[in-house]
Amino acid sequence: MKSLTRATRILDNVRLSQSCKNITGFRNMANIKAQYKKAITFENLNPNIVRLEYAVRGPLYLRVLEIEQELKDGVEKPFNKVIKANAGDAQAMGQIPISFIRQVLVCVSYPEMIETSNFSKDVKERAREILDACVGNSIGSYSIAVGIESIRKSVANFIEKRDGYKANWRDICLTAGASAGIKNCLELLINDIEGKPSGVMIPIPQYPLYSASLAEYGLKQVDYYLDESKNWALTIEELDRALLDGSKDCKVRALVVINPGNPTGQVLTRDNIENIIKFAYKHSLMIFADEVYQQNIFEGEFHSFKKVLVELGAPYNQVEVVSFMSTSKGFMGECGLRGGWMEIVNMEPKVQANLYKCMSAKLCASTLGQAVVDCVARPPQEGDASYEQYVQERDNVLESLNIRAKMIEELFNNMEGFRCNVVQGAMYAFPRIELSGKAIEAAKKAGQEPDVFYAFRLLEATGICVVPGSGFGQEPGTYHFRTTILPQMDLLREMVDSFQKFHQKFTQEFS
Amino acid sequence: MKSLTRATRILDNVRLSQSCKNITGFRNMANIKAQYKKAITFENLNPNIVRLEYAVRGPLYLRVLEIEQELKDGVEKPFNKVIKANAGDAQAMGQIPISFIRQVLVCVSYPEMIETSNFSKDVKERAREILDACVGNSIGSYSIAVGIESIRKSVANFIEKRDGYKANWRDICLTAGASAGIKNCLELLINDIEGKPSGVMIPIPQYPLYSASLAEYGLKQVDYYLDESKNWALTIEELDRALLDGSKDCKVRALVVINPGNPTGQVLTRDNIENIIKFAYKHSLMIFADEVYQQNIFEGEFHSFKKVLVELGAPYNQVEVVSFMSTSKGFMGECGLRGGWMEIVNMEPKVQANLYKCMSAKLCASTLGQAVVDCVARPPQEGDASYEQYVQERDNVLESLNIRAKMIEELFNNMEGFRCNVVQGAMYAFPRIELSGKAIEAAKKAGQEPDVFYAFRLLEATGICVVPGSGFGQEPGTYHFRTTILPQMDLLREMVDSFQKFHQKFTQEFS
Repeated sequence: MKSLTRATRILDNVRLSQSCKNITGFRNMANIKAQYKKAITFENLNPNIVRLEYAVRGPLYLRVLEIEQELKDGVEKPFNKVIKANAGDAQAMGQIPISFIRQVLVCVSYPEMIETSNFSKDVKERAREILDACVGNSIGSYSIAVGIESIRKSVANFIEKRDGYKANWRDICLTAGASAGIKNCLELLINDIEGKPSGVMIPIPQYPLYSASLAEYGLKQVDYYLDESKNWALTIEELDRALLDGSKDCKVRALVVINPGNPTGQVLTRDNIENIIKFAYKHSLMIFADEVYQQNIFEGEFHSFKKVLVELGAPYNQVEVVSFMSTSKGFMGECGLRGGWMEIVNMEPKVQANLYKCMSAKLCASTLGQAVVDCVARPPQEGDASYEQYVQERDNVLESLNIRAKMIEELFNNMEGFRCNVVQGAMYAFPRIELSGKAIEAAKKAGQEPDVFYAFRLLEATGICVVPGSGFGQEPGTYHFRTTILPQMDLLREMVDSFQKFHQKFTQEFS
Repeated sequence: MKSLTRATRILDNVRLSQSCKNITGFRNMANIKAQYKKAITFENLNPNIVRLEYAVRGPLYLRVLEIEQELKDGVEKPFNKVIKANAGDAQAMGQIPISFIRQVLVCVSYPEMIETSNFSKDVKERAREILDACVGNSIGSYSIAVGIESIRKSVANFIEKRDGYKANWRDICLTAGASAGIKNCLELLINDIEGKPSGVMIPIPQYPLYSASLAEYGLKQVDYYLDESKNWALTIEELDRALLDGSKDCKVRALVVINPGNPTGQVLTRDNIENIIKFAYKHSLMIFADEVYQQNIFEGEFHSFKKVLVELGAPYNQVEVVSFMSTSKGFMGECGLRGGWMEIVNMEPKVQANLYKCMSAKLCASTLGQAVVDCVARPPQEGDASYEQYVQERDNVLESLNIRAKMIEELFNNMEGFRCNVVQGAMYAFPRIELSGKAIEAAKKAGQEPDVFYAFRLLEATGICVVPGSGFGQEPGTYHFRTTILPQMDLLREMVDSFQKFHQKFTQEFS
């Protein structure tokens, strides 16, 4: 068939060239034809974009989309659905949205509902307040680039309550999720300093938005390793080593800390944060405090970098910190609505003005996402009509996540060849797997990293999609994967069961 | 007052240094103190971001925000409100949202409404279809980066109906407004070719997202001038000139065309588009077809680049085109909800795969914005319960815009010293003003461009905010400004009146 097609094509070309001889002018056209070259080819494409990788939506995820189509098309599989344990996407896994948030969205989207619906008084009041703060009293108008003023004030209040210290609403920017803010701030660093590119320290394992964005912006990635043997601790010794090492070929200017950790699930102690701030101080580094999981704490206590910075006092309270938060995580899990914020601390005013200017060309983050931010930053209070339902819904989610965090950790620690640290926070477990020489050999033959090989096999056999550790980075010679704790309880049990069976078979096959 | 504050501060410092002498260890701390330098200063900030300018939200707009605060604080002004004729933001200026869109948003945000509301059957069906297409049947989950599949299919159908030719849904990406898509595609071009930076041809006057993004990405801006004397015509002679000129210091790889024009309001003829495509073909340029105002046509007819490309046939149908569309414009004006799409034509598959990969790190555009896209691409059809209301609302907006377009053009052409081309499409008039030598002199003294000087004076005297022509680019020695046609009829009349009075006074003052 293939050769026939090819033959037909060759034949067509012959016919074409014969007929051309008879047509005057066609030769010119043929010349023109030869002229066109694609403006963008793989060869002349922005090389940073070629380098960029984002494992959470990488080749494994593309295969998931294919498998889902195959299932729809009736292709037989050893499973009847894909379990997407790859992304921190709670509602995709059946989590119920918080009613208060959604009711406010209804009312701001369709203000008639403020009059006609039977939603609580506080819902309606909130909607009215948000609309009053919108230009032309409509959620359909642009806000200023850094977000609706009253919502920035809500966020400042949230932070003040959380930390016990002043937050300036002018230093709050509302962003489309945390990612947009992180990228905006990383972009500030693109510049050669003393002939060297700027470098940014990131944890390994890390959330791959960081490696992807650093690649995209041509910034140097300086890896510091979290200590798996100490529950993914962040040690100053390792920061020192990484800085020294990284400084050879770049000017290190910033330090990313993800707390609670993604994919690693650890929660930093206050002491640890103090030392990190002192380290940043000593080396004049800006801290990117990725605190999007601040409401997902199962063990220990969350301390914001901002709070510890203030409490440390002079001279350490001069350190530049940007803290990022998202409405996609926590107990609301409103990933699709793209709400988020960043709090900017100690940034040089001129730099901050330039950041705001740069954001303004992109107009604004979704105003509905901003409305979600308002609900998260200023939830119903005791005495409000929505309060009880809100608390119940919130606590249901958080308690269930707590149980699932422990359940998944136990599961892996009970499986031969697995070792999993305590999931203290966030939404992920990042267990380590021992892979046999034979399995590693087989992966090599397949042209895959051993953990990628394992994850593909798991997916094809069970429909479970996890993300291989190599997408986050890991100590050479070790293998991990990230799984979310987000499948609802029944599904999680089913996943656990099917995972165990797969692993036994896999171990047998490659023993 | 100022000197007192300063004095107090100096005094505090003296006291501090005296007390320090008595504290052991403080000397060390003082040493550490001297150590900290900001990681990002104005001097080492990404220089592209310093260069970036976005006039629509520039210094004039910042002054608007101040004035609004002053009005709130009771400061006396010769006006009682600001008329924001600076931004293409219909709902900010009182335009009523399309009910169908908002009702669908209500139902997808709060699925209970599908059962309990008295919205039409087609609204509810639509909401159900969108939710069925969401992961986990929730609008709160992430979509894939290029958007919800069924909505990409709606867009493809819309384009097929519009043009009469096939559109492939896999080549449709849903974006956060048009801006996000434009930036994603421009980013592909960042690369030196044969030792030269990549260049992009943009019209002058242009929408400043382009100049801002080119500056941000370090791409060379190659200006081609629209011919004001021929109603902002785009001539091939001028494209040739600009290309030749621009090619001296960059490799020109793309051509931006804004049709209907922003800020210029012209609608390109089919002939003109043919010639532009042939030009792009001849010089291997990718066309950025900014077609966000395709539904805002008052005179002439809209021809999409895609359609003309297909009809031109071989060899011209090989040209790479990306067409951008937004739900912020048209008759819906849902600016805050950040919906948009791009259709990618003839892009090298590997390049397109890399574009999609790069988008995936940003997760996805707002799913609610995507839902708006679905409503715009697939509006109620004859026979649907919402149809009549939808048509009425749509036509009300479009007819009113049509009247306002003519009204504003006439206004300016009746004012001495003004000349305004026909507003054939989009939402803006871009009249030219003659400024006297004295006015230009006064502007120079104030350290401002003459049109900026005029616009500031207009704002302070009347509360009317327009954008000076220098923000869009204009022939040297000519002065313009952009005003939207979006103020509702009564407000527009008020604005027109107050504008005329101001202009008379201004002319007298500087004659």
